[in-house]
Amino acid sequence: MIGVFDSGFGGLTVLDSLLQGMPEYDYVYLADNARAPYGARSFDVIHDFTREAVDHLFREGCSVVILACNTASARALRTLQQRWLPQAWPDRRILGVVRPSVEALAGLPPGSIPGETFPSSTTGRLAVVATSGTVNSDSFRLELEKFAPGVELVQQACPLWVPMVENGEIQGAGAEFFVHKYLDPLFSGDAPPKRLLLGCTHYPLLLPLIRKAVPEGTEILAQGPLVAERFAHWVSRHPEFAGRLGSQGRRIWQTTDDPDWFARQAACLLNTPLKASRVNLREVR
Amino acid sequence: MIGVFDSGFGGLTVLDSLLQGMPEYDYVYLADNARAPYGARSFDVIHDFTREAVDHLFREGCSVVILACNTASARALRTLQQRWLPQAWPDRRILGVVRPSVEALAGLPPGSIPGETFPSSTTGRLAVVATSGTVNSDSFRLELEKFAPGVELVQQACPLWVPMVENGEIQGAGAEFFVHKYLDPLFSGDAPPKRLLLGCTHYPLLLPLIRKAVPEGTEILAQGPLVAERFAHWVSRHPEFAGRLGSQGRRIWQTTDDPDWFARQAACLLNTPLKASRVNLREVR
Repeated sequence: MIGVFDSGFGGLTVLDSLLQGMPEYDYVYLADNARAPYGARSFDVIHDFTREAVDHLFREGCSVVILACNTASARALRTLQQRWLPQAWPDRRILGVVRPSVEALAGLPPGSIPGETFPSSTTGRLAVVATSGTVNSDSFRLELEKFAPGVELVQQACPLWVPMVENGEIQGAGAEFFVHKYLDPLFSGDAPPKRLLLGCTHYPLLLPLIRKAVPEGTEILAQGPLVAERFAHWVSRHPEFAGRLGSQGRRIWQTTDDPDWFARQAACLLNTPLKASRVNLREVR
Repeated sequence: MIGVFDSGFGGLTVLDSLLQGMPEYDYVYLADNARAPYGARSFDVIHDFTREAVDHLFREGCSVVILACNTASARALRTLQQRWLPQAWPDRRILGVVRPSVEALAGLPPGSIPGETFPSSTTGRLAVVATSGTVNSDSFRLELEKFAPGVELVQQACPLWVPMVENGEIQGAGAEFFVHKYLDPLFSGDAPPKRLLLGCTHYPLLLPLIRKAVPEGTEILAQGPLVAERFAHWVSRHPEFAGRLGSQGRRIWQTTDDPDWFARQAACLLNTPLKASRVNLREVR
Protein backbone atom coordinates (compact mmCIF):
# COMPACT_ATOMS: atom_id res chain seq x y z
CA MET A 1 0.00 0.00 0.00
CA ILE A 2 0.91 3.67 -0.33
CA GLY A 3 0.56 5.78 2.82
CA VAL A 4 -0.24 9.45 2.40
CA PHE A 5 0.20 11.54 5.55
CA ASP A 6 -0.75 15.09 6.41
CA SER A 7 -1.41 16.94 9.66
CA GLY A 8 -4.90 17.72 8.34
CA PHE A 9 -6.94 18.03 5.17
CA GLY A 10 -4.42 19.79 2.91
CA GLY A 11 -2.77 16.52 1.85
CA LEU A 12 -6.02 15.52 0.18
CA THR A 13 -5.10 17.86 -2.69
CA VAL A 14 -2.03 15.65 -3.26
CA LEU A 15 -3.94 12.40 -2.76
CA ASP A 16 -6.56 13.57 -5.25
CA SER A 17 -3.91 13.91 -7.97
CA LEU A 18 -2.37 10.54 -7.06
CA LEU A 19 -5.76 8.82 -7.31
CA GLN A 20 -6.39 10.39 -10.71
CA GLY A 21 -3.01 9.35 -12.11
CA MET A 22 -2.56 5.94 -10.40
CA PRO A 23 -5.98 4.67 -9.31
CA GLU A 24 -4.94 1.00 -9.40
CA TYR A 25 -2.79 1.16 -6.23
CA ASP A 26 -4.01 0.79 -2.63
CA TYR A 27 -3.91 3.94 -0.47
CA VAL A 28 -4.14 4.77 3.24
CA TYR A 29 -4.67 8.45 4.03
CA LEU A 30 -3.80 9.45 7.60
CA ALA A 31 -4.58 12.90 9.02
CA ASP A 32 -3.35 13.91 12.49
CA ASN A 33 -6.33 16.25 12.95
CA ALA A 34 -6.15 16.01 16.75
CA ARG A 35 -2.78 17.80 16.69
CA ALA A 36 -3.05 19.91 13.52
CA PRO A 37 -1.82 22.34 12.33
CA TYR A 38 1.92 21.60 12.45
CA GLY A 39 3.00 24.86 10.71
CA ALA A 40 4.22 26.82 13.73
CA ARG A 41 5.41 23.97 15.99
CA SER A 42 9.05 23.43 16.90
CA PHE A 43 11.42 21.08 15.09
CA ASP A 44 11.37 18.46 17.88
CA VAL A 45 7.59 18.31 18.04
CA ILE A 46 7.13 18.07 14.26
CA HIS A 47 9.80 15.36 14.12
CA ASP A 48 8.22 13.26 16.87
CA PHE A 49 4.65 13.60 15.55
CA THR A 50 5.73 12.74 11.99
CA ARG A 51 7.71 9.69 13.13
CA GLU A 52 4.69 8.41 15.05
CA ALA A 53 2.49 8.81 11.96
CA VAL A 54 4.93 7.15 9.57
CA ASP A 55 5.56 4.28 12.00
CA HIS A 56 1.81 3.74 12.21
CA LEU A 57 1.45 3.63 8.41
CA PHE A 58 4.31 1.12 8.11
CA ARG A 59 2.63 -1.07 10.74
CA GLU A 60 -0.56 -0.84 8.67
CA GLY A 61 1.41 -2.40 5.79
CA CYS A 62 2.51 0.56 3.66
CA SER A 63 5.72 0.09 1.65
CA VAL A 64 6.04 3.77 0.82
CA VAL A 65 4.81 6.77 2.79
CA ILE A 66 4.43 10.16 1.11
CA LEU A 67 4.56 13.12 3.50
CA ALA A 68 1.90 15.25 1.80
CA CYS A 69 2.70 18.03 4.27
CA ASN A 70 5.34 20.64 3.58
CA THR A 71 6.07 21.28 7.25
CA ALA A 72 6.78 17.58 7.89
CA SER A 73 8.74 17.26 4.62
CA ALA A 74 10.81 20.33 5.40
CA ARG A 75 11.50 19.68 9.06
CA ALA A 76 11.37 15.91 9.64
CA LEU A 77 12.00 13.99 6.38
CA ARG A 78 15.78 14.21 6.14
CA THR A 79 16.42 13.15 9.75
CA LEU A 80 13.91 10.31 9.56
CA GLN A 81 15.41 9.03 6.29
CA GLN A 82 18.96 9.15 7.60
CA ARG A 83 18.74 8.28 11.29
CA TRP A 84 15.56 6.29 11.87
CA LEU A 85 14.47 4.44 8.71
CA PRO A 86 17.63 2.34 8.12
CA GLN A 87 17.37 0.77 11.60
CA ALA A 88 13.62 0.73 12.12
CA TRP A 89 12.21 -0.10 8.65
CA PRO A 90 15.10 -0.78 6.23
CA ASP A 91 12.89 -2.07 3.40
CA ARG A 92 10.45 0.90 3.37
CA ARG A 93 10.67 4.39 1.90
CA ILE A 94 9.54 7.87 2.97
CA LEU A 95 9.12 10.53 0.29
CA GLY A 96 8.36 14.22 0.71
CA VAL A 97 6.91 17.05 -1.32
CA VAL A 98 9.85 19.49 -1.16
CA ARG A 99 12.16 17.74 -3.66
CA PRO A 100 9.57 17.30 -6.44
CA SER A 101 8.32 20.86 -5.86
CA VAL A 102 11.80 22.29 -6.21
CA GLU A 103 12.35 20.35 -9.47
CA ALA A 104 9.16 21.84 -10.87
CA LEU A 105 9.96 25.32 -9.53
CA ALA A 106 13.34 25.23 -11.30
CA GLY A 107 11.67 23.98 -14.49
CA LEU A 108 13.55 20.66 -14.38
CA PRO A 109 12.24 17.26 -15.52
CA PRO A 110 11.34 14.57 -12.93
CA GLY A 111 14.28 12.67 -11.47
CA SER A 112 16.82 15.41 -12.15
CA ILE A 113 20.22 14.96 -10.52
CA PRO A 114 21.83 17.71 -8.43
CA GLY A 115 24.92 19.12 -10.11
CA GLU A 116 23.67 18.80 -13.69
CA THR A 117 23.12 22.20 -15.27
CA PHE A 118 19.97 23.33 -17.01
CA PRO A 119 20.78 26.97 -17.69
CA SER A 120 17.91 27.80 -20.01
CA SER A 121 15.13 26.68 -17.69
CA THR A 122 16.44 27.88 -14.35
CA THR A 123 16.86 31.60 -14.91
CA GLY A 124 14.60 34.28 -13.48
CA ARG A 125 13.38 34.98 -9.97
CA LEU A 126 11.37 32.24 -8.24
CA ALA A 127 8.97 32.51 -5.28
CA VAL A 128 7.50 30.23 -2.61
CA VAL A 129 4.61 30.86 -0.24
CA ALA A 130 4.36 28.48 2.74
CA THR A 131 3.76 28.20 6.50
CA SER A 132 6.12 29.91 8.97
CA GLY A 133 7.64 26.54 9.89
CA THR A 134 8.46 25.70 6.27
CA VAL A 135 9.87 29.15 5.51
CA ASN A 136 11.94 29.22 8.70
CA SER A 137 13.42 25.80 7.89
CA ASP A 138 14.76 27.29 4.61
CA SER A 139 14.33 23.83 3.07
CA PHE A 140 13.11 25.05 -0.31
CA ARG A 141 16.15 27.29 -0.68
CA LEU A 142 18.60 24.60 0.47
CA GLU A 143 17.11 22.03 -1.93
CA LEU A 144 16.95 24.51 -4.82
CA GLU A 145 20.61 25.43 -4.33
CA LYS A 146 21.57 21.84 -5.17
CA PHE A 147 19.81 21.95 -8.54
CA ALA A 148 20.09 25.57 -9.56
CA PRO A 149 22.83 27.31 -7.58
CA GLY A 150 22.63 31.08 -7.61
CA VAL A 151 18.98 31.28 -8.65
CA GLU A 152 17.15 33.96 -6.67
CA LEU A 153 14.36 32.61 -4.46
CA VAL A 154 11.99 34.78 -2.41
CA GLN A 155 9.96 33.15 0.35
CA GLN A 156 6.88 34.43 2.13
CA ALA A 157 5.12 32.95 5.17
CA CYS A 158 1.30 33.15 5.07
CA PRO A 159 0.28 32.13 8.62
CA LEU A 160 -3.44 32.96 8.30
CA TRP A 161 -4.11 31.03 5.07
CA VAL A 162 -4.45 27.61 6.70
CA PRO A 163 -6.92 28.82 9.38
CA MET A 164 -8.83 30.67 6.65
CA VAL A 165 -9.11 27.54 4.49
CA GLU A 166 -10.00 25.35 7.48
CA ASN A 167 -12.83 27.75 8.36
CA GLY A 168 -14.16 28.15 4.83
CA GLU A 169 -12.96 31.77 4.53
CA ILE A 170 -11.83 31.43 0.91
CA GLN A 171 -13.65 34.44 -0.54
CA GLY A 172 -14.79 37.89 0.59
CA ALA A 173 -13.00 41.06 1.65
CA GLY A 174 -11.25 39.54 4.70
CA ALA A 175 -9.73 36.67 2.72
CA GLU A 176 -8.76 39.05 -0.10
CA PHE A 177 -7.02 41.33 2.40
CA PHE A 178 -4.80 38.54 3.71
CA VAL A 179 -4.12 37.14 0.22
CA HIS A 180 -2.86 40.57 -0.86
CA LYS A 181 -1.05 41.19 2.43
CA TYR A 182 1.24 38.21 1.85
CA LEU A 183 1.49 38.26 -1.98
CA ASP A 184 1.87 41.96 -2.78
CA PRO A 185 5.42 42.25 -1.35
CA LEU A 186 6.53 39.50 -3.77
CA PHE A 187 5.34 41.50 -6.77
CA SER A 188 6.29 45.04 -5.74
CA GLY A 189 9.62 45.10 -7.63
CA ASP A 190 10.39 45.54 -11.33
CA ALA A 191 10.87 41.84 -12.12
CA PRO A 192 7.97 39.71 -10.90
CA PRO A 193 8.87 36.08 -10.12
CA LYS A 194 8.74 33.72 -13.10
CA ARG A 195 7.09 30.98 -11.04
CA LEU A 196 5.23 30.99 -7.72
CA LEU A 197 5.05 27.69 -5.81
CA LEU A 198 2.15 27.16 -3.41
CA GLY A 199 4.32 25.43 -0.81
CA CYS A 200 1.48 24.30 1.46
CA THR A 201 -1.09 21.73 0.39
CA HIS A 202 -3.96 23.87 1.76
CA TYR A 203 -3.23 26.81 -0.51
CA PRO A 204 -4.74 25.49 -3.79
CA LEU A 205 -8.14 26.02 -2.15
CA LEU A 206 -7.40 29.77 -2.30
CA LEU A 207 -6.46 29.62 -6.01
CA PRO A 208 -9.27 31.86 -7.30
CA LEU A 209 -8.12 34.71 -5.04
CA ILE A 210 -4.42 33.99 -5.59
CA ARG A 211 -4.82 34.08 -9.39
CA LYS A 212 -6.39 37.54 -9.14
CA ALA A 213 -3.47 38.83 -7.03
CA VAL A 214 -0.67 37.43 -9.24
CA PRO A 215 0.45 39.03 -12.55
CA GLU A 216 -0.28 37.03 -15.71
CA GLY A 217 3.39 36.48 -16.51
CA THR A 218 3.92 34.43 -13.32
CA GLU A 219 3.21 30.69 -13.47
CA ILE A 220 1.46 29.34 -10.34
CA LEU A 221 2.47 25.81 -9.29
CA ALA A 222 0.17 23.69 -7.08
CA GLN A 223 1.74 20.59 -5.56
CA GLY A 224 -0.93 17.96 -6.30
CA PRO A 225 -0.26 17.49 -10.01
CA LEU A 226 3.52 17.90 -9.81
CA VAL A 227 3.92 15.47 -6.89
CA ALA A 228 1.73 12.87 -8.65
CA GLU A 229 3.70 13.19 -11.90
CA ARG A 230 7.01 12.86 -10.12
CA PHE A 231 5.83 9.98 -7.91
CA ALA A 232 4.86 8.03 -11.07
CA HIS A 233 8.36 8.67 -12.35
CA TRP A 234 9.86 7.50 -9.02
CA VAL A 235 7.92 4.22 -9.26
CA SER A 236 9.21 3.67 -12.80
CA ARG A 237 12.79 4.07 -11.51
CA HIS A 238 12.15 1.72 -8.53
CA PRO A 239 10.61 -1.43 -10.02
CA GLU A 240 11.27 -3.30 -6.77
CA PHE A 241 8.51 -1.18 -5.18
CA ALA A 242 6.03 -1.28 -8.07
CA GLY A 243 4.78 -4.72 -6.96
CA ARG A 244 4.41 -3.64 -3.32
CA LEU A 245 1.94 -0.76 -3.72
CA GLY A 246 -1.23 -2.86 -3.93
CA SER A 247 -3.43 -3.50 -6.93
CA GLN A 248 -6.98 -3.59 -5.66
CA GLY A 249 -7.70 0.12 -5.71
CA ARG A 250 -8.37 0.07 -1.94
CA ARG A 251 -8.89 3.37 -0.07
CA ILE A 252 -8.48 3.50 3.72
CA TRP A 253 -9.15 6.74 5.65
CA GLN A 254 -7.74 7.33 9.13
CA THR A 255 -7.70 10.30 11.50
CA THR A 256 -6.63 10.98 15.08
CA ASP A 257 -9.82 13.02 15.71
CA ASP A 258 -13.51 12.31 15.14
CA PRO A 259 -13.85 9.96 12.11
CA ASP A 260 -17.38 11.07 11.13
CA TRP A 261 -16.36 14.72 11.09
CA PHE A 262 -13.25 13.83 9.09
CA ALA A 263 -15.30 11.79 6.61
CA ARG A 264 -17.74 14.66 6.04
CA GLN A 265 -14.97 17.22 5.41
CA ALA A 266 -12.92 14.90 3.21
CA ALA A 267 -15.98 13.82 1.20
CA CYS A 268 -16.66 17.49 0.43
CA LEU A 269 -13.11 18.17 -0.70
CA LEU A 270 -12.83 14.99 -2.80
CA ASN A 271 -16.43 15.04 -3.96
CA THR A 272 -16.95 11.35 -3.09
CA PRO A 273 -18.49 9.65 -0.03
CA LEU A 274 -16.13 7.77 2.31
CA LYS A 275 -15.87 6.12 5.75
CA ALA A 276 -13.05 6.83 8.18
CA SER A 277 -11.78 5.35 11.45
CA ARG A 278 -10.02 6.91 14.43
CA VAL A 279 -6.49 5.75 15.30
CA ASN A 280 -4.22 6.52 18.25
CA LEU A 281 -0.63 7.37 17.39
CA ARG A 282 1.79 6.12 20.00
CA GLU A 283 5.23 7.38 20.95
CA VAL A 284 8.13 5.86 19.00
CA ARG A 285 11.59 5.83 20.57
CA MET B 1 0.34 24.94 44.46
CA ILE B 2 -2.26 26.22 42.00
CA GLY B 3 -2.14 24.77 38.49
CA VAL B 4 -3.35 26.93 35.62
CA PHE B 5 -3.87 25.10 32.35
CA ASP B 6 -4.56 26.30 28.82
CA SER B 7 -4.00 24.82 25.38
CA GLY B 8 -1.82 27.83 24.57
CA PHE B 9 -1.12 31.42 25.57
CA GLY B 10 -4.67 32.66 26.13
CA GLY B 11 -4.77 31.40 29.73
CA LEU B 12 -2.03 33.87 30.58
CA THR B 13 -4.70 36.60 30.59
CA VAL B 14 -6.35 34.69 33.48
CA LEU B 15 -3.06 33.93 35.23
CA ASP B 16 -2.11 37.59 35.01
CA SER B 17 -5.21 38.59 36.98
CA LEU B 18 -4.64 35.79 39.53
CA LEU B 19 -1.05 36.94 40.10
CA GLN B 20 -2.19 40.53 40.62
CA GLY B 21 -4.87 39.57 43.12
CA MET B 22 -3.17 36.66 44.95
CA PRO B 23 0.59 36.95 44.41
CA GLU B 24 1.45 35.06 47.61
CA TYR B 25 0.44 31.61 46.29
CA ASP B 26 2.60 29.22 44.23
CA TYR B 27 1.60 28.75 40.58
CA VAL B 28 2.39 26.29 37.78
CA TYR B 29 1.27 27.40 34.31
CA LEU B 30 1.02 24.58 31.76
CA ALA B 31 0.40 25.22 28.03
CA ASP B 32 -0.18 22.33 25.63
CA ASN B 33 1.31 24.33 22.75
CA ALA B 34 2.30 21.18 20.83
CA ARG B 35 -1.39 20.31 20.36
CA ALA B 36 -3.02 23.77 20.44
CA PRO B 37 -5.54 25.08 19.54
CA TYR B 38 -8.27 22.89 21.05
CA GLY B 39 -11.19 25.03 19.78
CA ALA B 40 -12.36 22.87 16.86
CA ARG B 41 -11.37 19.40 18.15
CA SER B 42 -13.92 16.72 19.04
CA PHE B 43 -15.26 16.06 22.53
CA ASP B 44 -13.21 12.85 23.00
CA VAL B 45 -9.93 14.47 22.00
CA ILE B 46 -10.45 17.57 24.20
CA HIS B 47 -11.43 15.32 27.10
CA ASP B 48 -8.35 13.08 26.77
CA PHE B 49 -5.89 15.96 26.29
CA THR B 50 -7.34 17.88 29.26
CA ARG B 51 -7.24 14.83 31.54
CA GLU B 52 -3.57 14.26 30.64
CA ALA B 53 -2.76 17.89 31.47
CA VAL B 54 -4.64 17.92 34.79
CA ASP B 55 -3.16 14.58 35.83
CA HIS B 56 0.30 16.00 35.13
CA LEU B 57 -0.37 19.10 37.25
CA PHE B 58 -1.63 16.97 40.15
CA ARG B 59 1.52 14.84 39.94
CA GLU B 60 3.53 18.09 40.08
CA GLY B 61 1.87 18.78 43.44
CA CYS B 62 -1.03 21.09 42.63
CA SER B 63 -4.05 20.94 44.99
CA VAL B 64 -6.30 22.89 42.65
CA VAL B 65 -6.18 23.15 38.87
CA ILE B 66 -7.94 25.99 37.05
CA LEU B 67 -8.82 25.23 33.43
CA ALA B 68 -8.07 28.68 32.00
CA CYS B 69 -9.39 27.47 28.67
CA ASN B 70 -13.05 27.78 27.73
CA THR B 71 -12.98 24.82 25.35
CA ALA B 72 -11.62 22.51 28.07
CA SER B 73 -13.97 23.99 30.69
CA ALA B 74 -16.98 23.62 28.40
CA ARG B 75 -16.26 20.16 27.05
CA ALA B 76 -14.19 18.27 29.63
CA LEU B 77 -14.67 19.76 33.13
CA ARG B 78 -18.01 18.24 34.12
CA THR B 79 -17.08 14.69 33.07
CA LEU B 80 -13.66 14.89 34.72
CA GLN B 81 -15.18 16.22 37.97
CA GLN B 82 -17.86 13.55 38.10
CA ARG B 83 -16.27 10.42 36.63
CA TRP B 84 -12.51 10.69 37.02
CA LEU B 85 -11.54 12.95 39.93
CA PRO B 86 -13.34 11.05 42.78
CA GLN B 87 -11.46 7.83 41.98
CA ALA B 88 -8.15 9.20 40.72
CA TRP B 89 -7.50 12.26 42.92
CA PRO B 90 -10.24 12.51 45.60
CA ASP B 91 -8.53 15.29 47.61
CA ARG B 92 -7.93 17.64 44.66
CA ARG B 93 -10.18 20.06 42.80
CA ILE B 94 -10.62 21.17 39.17
CA LEU B 95 -12.26 24.53 38.50
CA GLY B 96 -13.26 26.03 35.16
CA VAL B 97 -13.96 29.44 33.69
CA VAL B 98 -17.54 28.87 32.49
CA ARG B 99 -19.31 29.03 35.89
CA PRO B 100 -17.68 32.28 37.10
CA SER B 101 -18.18 33.82 33.64
CA VAL B 102 -21.88 32.99 33.67
CA GLU B 103 -22.27 34.50 37.16
CA ALA B 104 -20.71 37.72 35.91
CA LEU B 105 -22.68 37.67 32.66
CA ALA B 106 -25.93 37.40 34.63
CA GLY B 107 -24.81 40.22 36.96
CA LEU B 108 -24.76 37.91 40.00
CA PRO B 109 -22.35 38.08 42.96
CA PRO B 110 -19.60 35.43 43.35
CA GLY B 111 -20.76 32.11 44.80
CA SER B 112 -24.38 32.51 43.73
CA ILE B 113 -26.55 29.44 44.08
CA PRO B 114 -28.65 28.10 41.19
CA GLY B 115 -32.37 28.48 41.87
CA GLU B 116 -32.15 31.76 43.78
CA THR B 117 -33.71 34.59 41.84
CA PHE B 118 -32.09 37.90 41.09
CA PRO B 119 -34.69 39.50 38.86
CA SER B 120 -33.31 43.01 38.73
CA SER B 121 -29.82 42.09 37.57
CA THR B 122 -30.61 39.33 35.09
CA THR B 123 -32.89 41.07 32.65
CA GLY B 124 -31.92 42.08 29.13
CA ARG B 125 -30.29 40.20 26.30
CA LEU B 126 -26.84 38.73 26.90
CA ALA B 127 -24.17 37.68 24.39
CA VAL B 128 -21.13 35.39 24.27
CA VAL B 129 -18.39 35.17 21.66
CA ALA B 130 -16.23 32.02 21.79
CA THR B 131 -14.58 29.26 19.73
CA SER B 132 -16.72 26.88 17.65
CA GLY B 133 -16.10 24.09 20.18
CA THR B 134 -17.35 26.17 23.08
CA VAL B 135 -20.41 27.47 21.20
CA ASN B 136 -21.30 24.00 19.90
CA SER B 137 -21.11 22.58 23.43
CA ASP B 138 -23.82 25.08 24.47
CA SER B 139 -22.22 25.13 27.93
CA PHE B 140 -22.71 28.85 28.54
CA ARG B 141 -26.42 28.56 27.82
CA LEU B 142 -26.87 25.41 29.96
CA GLU B 143 -25.03 26.99 32.90
CA LEU B 144 -26.87 30.31 32.55
CA GLU B 145 -30.25 28.53 32.54
CA LYS B 146 -29.55 27.29 36.07
CA PHE B 147 -29.03 30.83 37.41
CA ALA B 148 -31.26 32.93 35.23
CA PRO B 149 -33.86 30.75 33.50
CA GLY B 150 -35.52 32.37 30.51
CA VAL B 151 -32.84 35.02 29.95
CA GLU B 152 -32.07 35.42 26.26
CA LEU B 153 -28.50 34.49 25.30
CA VAL B 154 -27.03 34.88 21.81
CA GLN B 155 -23.80 33.04 21.00
CA GLN B 156 -21.36 33.64 18.15
CA ALA B 157 -18.36 31.52 17.13
CA CYS B 158 -15.30 33.53 15.99
CA PRO B 159 -13.02 30.85 14.51
CA LEU B 160 -10.39 33.20 13.06
CA TRP B 161 -9.77 35.29 16.19
CA VAL B 162 -7.40 32.82 17.87
CA PRO B 163 -5.19 32.40 14.74
CA MET B 164 -5.24 36.20 14.33
CA VAL B 165 -4.08 36.76 17.91
CA GLU B 166 -1.47 33.99 17.69
CA ASN B 167 -0.03 35.62 14.56
CA GLY B 168 -0.06 39.16 15.88
CA GLU B 169 -2.89 40.26 13.53
CA ILE B 170 -4.65 42.42 16.14
CA GLN B 171 -4.95 45.61 14.11
CA GLY B 172 -5.37 46.64 10.48
CA ALA B 173 -8.11 46.22 7.90
CA GLY B 174 -8.02 42.40 7.82
CA ALA B 175 -8.40 42.06 11.59
CA GLU B 176 -11.13 44.74 11.59
CA PHE B 177 -13.02 42.86 8.87
CA PHE B 178 -13.16 39.65 10.91
CA VAL B 179 -13.99 41.50 14.15
CA HIS B 180 -16.99 43.09 12.42
CA LYS B 181 -17.91 39.90 10.57
CA TYR B 182 -18.55 38.07 13.84
CA LEU B 183 -19.80 40.97 16.03
CA ASP B 184 -22.12 42.88 13.68
CA PRO B 185 -24.85 40.18 13.62
CA LEU B 186 -25.09 40.44 17.43
CA PHE B 187 -25.87 44.16 17.22
CA SER B 188 -28.07 44.31 14.14
CA GLY B 189 -31.42 44.21 16.03
CA ASP B 190 -33.26 46.91 17.99
CA ALA B 191 -32.09 45.82 21.44
CA PRO B 192 -28.31 45.40 21.65
CA PRO B 193 -27.11 42.93 24.30
CA LYS B 194 -26.67 44.38 27.78
CA ARG B 195 -23.41 42.47 28.33
CA LEU B 196 -20.96 40.78 25.94
CA LEU B 197 -18.74 38.06 27.41
CA LEU B 198 -15.41 37.37 25.69
CA GLY B 199 -15.68 33.60 26.16
CA CYS B 200 -12.16 32.75 25.02
CA THR B 201 -9.07 33.80 26.92
CA HIS B 202 -7.34 34.97 23.72
CA TYR B 203 -9.97 37.57 22.89
CA PRO B 204 -8.95 40.33 25.35
CA LEU B 205 -5.94 40.89 23.10
CA LEU B 206 -8.40 42.13 20.44
CA LEU B 207 -10.11 44.50 22.91
CA PRO B 208 -9.19 47.78 21.12
CA LEU B 209 -10.93 46.58 17.92
CA ILE B 210 -13.80 44.94 19.80
CA ARG B 211 -14.54 48.14 21.75
CA LYS B 212 -14.82 50.08 18.48
CA ALA B 213 -17.31 47.54 17.07
CA VAL B 214 -19.57 47.35 20.16
CA PRO B 215 -22.16 50.05 21.09
CA GLU B 216 -21.44 52.08 24.23
CA GLY B 217 -24.43 50.71 26.11
CA THR B 218 -23.04 47.17 26.05
CA GLU B 219 -20.69 46.13 28.87
CA ILE B 220 -17.74 43.99 27.70
CA LEU B 221 -16.61 41.29 30.13
CA ALA B 222 -13.07 39.82 29.94
CA GLN B 223 -12.48 36.64 31.92
CA GLY B 224 -9.20 37.45 33.68
CA PRO B 225 -10.52 39.86 36.33
CA LEU B 226 -13.83 38.05 36.89
CA VAL B 227 -12.20 34.61 37.25
CA ALA B 228 -9.60 35.99 39.69
CA GLU B 229 -12.26 37.73 41.80
CA ARG B 230 -14.40 34.60 41.94
CA PHE B 231 -11.46 32.30 42.65
CA ALA B 232 -10.53 34.46 45.68
CA HIS B 233 -14.12 34.04 46.84
CA TRP B 234 -13.93 30.26 46.29
CA VAL B 235 -10.79 30.07 48.46
CA SER B 236 -12.55 32.01 51.23
CA ARG B 237 -15.39 29.45 51.15
CA HIS B 238 -12.94 26.48 51.15
CA PRO B 239 -10.55 27.15 54.04
CA GLU B 240 -9.34 23.53 53.85
CA PHE B 241 -7.63 24.46 50.56
CA ALA B 242 -6.29 27.86 51.60
CA GLY B 243 -3.30 26.22 53.33
CA ARG B 244 -2.51 23.99 50.33
CA LEU B 245 -1.93 26.62 47.65
CA GLY B 246 1.67 27.47 48.56
CA SER B 247 2.99 30.62 50.17
CA GLN B 248 6.36 31.30 48.57
CA GLY B 249 5.18 33.14 45.49
CA ARG B 250 6.77 30.50 43.24
CA ARG B 251 6.13 30.60 39.45
CA ILE B 252 6.74 27.48 37.34
CA TRP B 253 6.28 27.58 33.54
CA GLN B 254 5.75 24.43 31.50
CA THR B 255 4.92 23.75 27.84
CA THR B 256 4.66 20.70 25.59
CA ASP B 257 6.51 22.57 22.78
CA ASP B 258 9.79 24.49 22.67
CA PRO B 259 10.39 26.09 26.12
CA ASP B 260 12.55 28.97 24.86
CA TRP B 261 9.94 29.99 22.30
CA PHE B 262 7.23 29.69 24.97
CA ALA B 263 9.25 31.81 27.40
CA ARG B 264 9.76 34.58 24.83
CA GLN B 265 6.06 34.74 23.91
CA ALA B 266 4.86 34.56 27.52
CA ALA B 267 7.39 37.17 28.67
CA CYS B 268 5.99 39.55 26.05
CA LEU B 269 2.39 39.00 27.11
CA LEU B 270 3.12 39.25 30.85
CA ASN B 271 5.80 41.90 30.51
CA THR B 272 8.23 40.00 32.75
CA PRO B 273 11.16 37.66 31.96
CA LEU B 274 10.71 33.96 32.74
CA LYS B 275 12.21 30.49 32.17
CA ALA B 276 10.16 27.51 31.00
CA SER B 277 10.68 23.77 30.65
CA ARG B 278 9.27 21.21 28.23
CA VAL B 279 7.09 18.38 29.58
CA ASN B 280 5.63 15.29 27.92
CA LEU B 281 2.00 14.59 28.70
CA ARG B 282 1.26 10.88 28.85
CA GLU B 283 -1.95 8.99 28.25
CA VAL B 284 -4.16 8.51 31.32
CA ARG B 285 -6.63 5.60 31.41
